[in-house]
Amino acid sequence: MSDRIVTAAVIIIGNEILSGRTQDTNLRDIAISLGRWGIRVAEARVIADVEATIVAAVNELRPRFDYVLTTGGIGPTHDDITAECIAKAFGVPLVEHPDIAAIIRRRETTAEIMASRLRMALVPQGAGLIENSTGGPPGFFIGNLYVMAGIPSVMRAMLASLESKLAGGVVLESCSVTAYVGESAIAAALRELQAQVPQVEIGSYPFAKEERIGTTLVIRGTDTKLLIEVAAKVRALITSAGGELKTD
Amino acid sequence: MSDRIVTAAVIIIGNEILSGRTQDTNLRDIAISLGRWGIRVAEARVIADVEATIVAAVNELRPRFDYVLTTGGIGPTHDDITAECIAKAFGVPLVEHPDIAAIIRRRETTAEIMASRLRMALVPQGAGLIENSTGGPPGFFIGNLYVMAGIPSVMRAMLASLESKLAGGVVLESCSVTAYVGESAIAAALRELQAQVPQVEIGSYPFAKEERIGTTLVIRGTDTKLLIEVAAKVRALITSAGGELKTD
Repeated sequence: MSDRIVTAAVIIIGNEILSGRTQDTNLRDIAISLGRWGIRVAEARVIADVEATIVAAVNELRPRFDYVLTTGGIGPTHDDITAECIAKAFGVPLVEHPDIAAIIRRRETTAEIMASRLRMALVPQGAGLIENSTGGPPGFFIGNLYVMAGIPSVMRAMLASLESKLAGGVVLESCSVTAYVGESAIAAALRELQAQVPQVEIGSYPFAKEERIGTTLVIRGTDTKLLIEVAAKVRALITSAGGELKTD
Repeated sequence: MSDRIVTAAVIIIGNEILSGRTQDTNLRDIAISLGRWGIRVAEARVIADVEATIVAAVNELRPRFDYVLTTGGIGPTHDDITAECIAKAFGVPLVEHPDIAAIIRRRETTAEIMASRLRMALVPQGAGLIENSTGGPPGFFIGNLYVMAGIPSVMRAMLASLESKLAGGVVLESCSVTAYVGESAIAAALRELQAQVPQVEIGSYPFAKEERIGTTLVIRGTDTKLLIEVAAKVRALITSAGGELKTD
């Protein structure tokens, strides 16, 4: 853990997310975990299961961020093309990883099914493994790119094992204040406050709940003491605008 | 409606999605509606509320897709910078739109709050409006770029009004088969079937539910008759692999 700002990009690979058939939840899980480890997700992309698209996204993003994490496309079927695309992106051959093959061979089955399962042992040459505590085949990493499954429960198992692999920087802390107040009623005072404390980032998120409108103010930064001071100022400006602070 | 394949990209603008504080649902809603109208979401990006990032994403994506839709960052507070970024991306000034200003002025308030609200009337010069049936300020469009609110209920209201504005192409229909069967057990047969019918796209999505594993096969294409035939073949190959079809 250093004082440096460490960033990551996330690539969600999957036609089922782009068609709307499946609601992605992996981005949020990744963002929360990485945030705790001092790594800021600075961009995310959802892309199709198309070789040229995957290769281009990987090669565009890996030089721009400290880490790139992908989810999806590492199963045994014909539409699982992530590993071969990443081998192409890195210009290395796709090879069978003996440790993954050994894990897969533990479960006996017919020769045909085994051949399909062993596709999941193919990784770009030089890749290391991402442990999978669900008992299924591991994910892999190569360079600064970490390749995980798309199924949320499996993705979370792989993500958990990354805590010891990814070096975080300074952690962005946050503090939030929620009130029944319209954004416009506090916008001018908030703008002034934000100008006074450029070291923190004040985000304003309106909501409508049970016929009442309100706003959540999220104050983010690396200095906890300052966050608490700014939150007190936010509460004060809400109250003086006639807003009702929500306490729960 | 034409026979052409019409594509769109979606840009979700908001630090709150990248931090994991908020689970995005707008992408899915947009993808489902556009899909019905014959427009395929081919890529989505989640980006930060940072001017250079927004300008770059907009200018990279608008020449590559028929439509680009954005959500987020069009409220009255200091962190709502989408409209001014899009004006910069198009190289036009940000101007007050008289129709939006008229809608905003309907609700009386103090001069200070009105000044904040009127920020929402600022659009890139030449922009047209996206109706907002919730009664709030409209979104806007310029060129092939459609700019909507981030609050899901407001986004959905704006999205509904786009049906008459966006020209769709051929609709991608889909047909799905769900079974309690592992992906590896059907992978070889599926691969063979996919090779026989390249006009359709067969997606294989494993799941684990109540201790049972299963797979949903989604067959997508433009020829409904062919989809039904392929679905029958998928059911047959599942059954001959010993899988149990799920019927509900």
